[in-house]
Amino acid sequence: MQISARNVLKGKVKKVTPGAVNSEIIVEVAGGVEIVSIITKSSAERLALNPGKQVYAIIKASNVMIGTD
Amino acid sequence: MQISARNVLKGKVKKVTPGAVNSEIIVEVAGGVEIVSIITKSSAERLALNPGKQVYAIIKASNVMIGTD
Amino acid sequence: MQISARNVLKGKVKKVTPGAVNSEIIVEVAGGVEIVSIITKSSAERLALNPGKQVYAIIKASNVMIGTD
Amino acid sequence: MQISARNVLKGKVKKVTPGAVNSEIIVEVAGGVEIVSIITKSSAERLALNPGKQVYAIIKASNVMIGTD
Amino acid sequence: MQISARNVLKGKVKKVTPGAVNSEIIVEVAGGVEIVSIITKSSAERLALNPGKQVYAIIKASNVMIGTD
Amino acid sequence: MQISARNVLKGKVKKVTPGAVNSEIIVEVAGGVEIVSIITKSSAERLALNPGKQVYAIIKASNVMIGTD
Repeated sequence: MQISARNVLKGKVKKVTPGAVNSEIIVEVAGGVEIVSIITKSSAERLALNPGKQVYAIIKASNVMIGTD
Repeated sequence: MQISARNVLKGKVKKVTPGAVNSEIIVEVAGGVEIVSIITKSSAERLALNPGKQVYAIIKASNVMIGTD
Repeated sequence: MQISARNVLKGKVKKVTPGAVNSEIIVEVAGGVEIVSIITKSSAERLALNPGKQVYAIIKASNVMIGTD
Repeated sequence: MQISARNVLKGKVKKVTPGAVNSEIIVEVAGGVEIVSIITKSSAERLALNPGKQVYAIIKASNVMIGTD
Repeated sequence: MQISARNVLKGKVKKVTPGAVNSEIIVEVAGGVEIVSIITKSSAERLALNPGKQVYAIIKASNVMIGTD
Repeated sequence: MQISARNVLKGKVKKVTPGAVNSEIIVEVAGGVEIVSIITKSSAERLALNPGKQVYAIIKASNVMIGTD
């Protein structure tokens, strides 16, 4: 499947922290950058997310803000 | 200001495309990765976003999805 | 690609309205329900969205609210 | 109240899974489609969401992505 | 209709700026605070949003970030 | 840091409810208005959010909906 989301960053799962309803997933992408994602626990299980697994961090452009110093 | 958003990626503005209400900003972050952001045209002007400017792409963790092959 | 988003609704593009930066896409899914999506014009062009094309409307669960009468 | 959100889908609560802070709500809408929503536990209680209750799944158009095969 | 969104702020429309696809709405709420909203132009027309009209600014709790000095 | 988000509301933390992965933060802003935010528990700890602390509630304009009576 191709997706309209403009930001699809290839990486590897570094850590999965499950909660009751949501899980926190840390993904390491290019340049050693870490991306944190909150998805439902059910999705984390369905995608079998575990440390080392190759994944994509996907972000819709309208959800990206810009900051300046 | 410090912000709760877990994802704050340092980069440089690569391109600004203004519309009537929103502008599209392309930011190049570490590892040569490009991040696309849609913000209001008014914010893009207030922050004086132009190619070459040092910025941060900021993303709340709950807005990051995970994809697998 | 499999995606963590819990809501992936199969449908058909009904209408595409392009703006300067964003495009509005109307998708008809099961039960004759119409789903409206705003994505970047650039994504609408990259996915070649035109009336009749088979697509999925994809929504992260944390972006769904509940209303009651 | 009328709301600007373009997507207001009539349905019935199918399942409620409460967590510590958030609850997961599954709504069955037209055509047998299931929509998953994450809202605060406090909102789920305030709206008295229980299986069988008539509700609306509400989604802002800017939170709908498009996927293609 | 009652809505799960935790933040429903009563106010008055101050300004409407229409674009091709989206419109920017400025709402003045309690305490003289201005809230800026981007909705589809079509929704702004359907709700007949014009300066002076009594409205609510509605925000899902998962879309609110926290900043500190 | 300056941020593109159009809505930056000054206030004070009123209550923090931690869950396993997310925490709910209630902020009192001008005019006695309460804003509810869901952020990761990890961010709430990093920003040392406790009742009485001066903070900002930050909301991207594209996440604000409009309702009418």
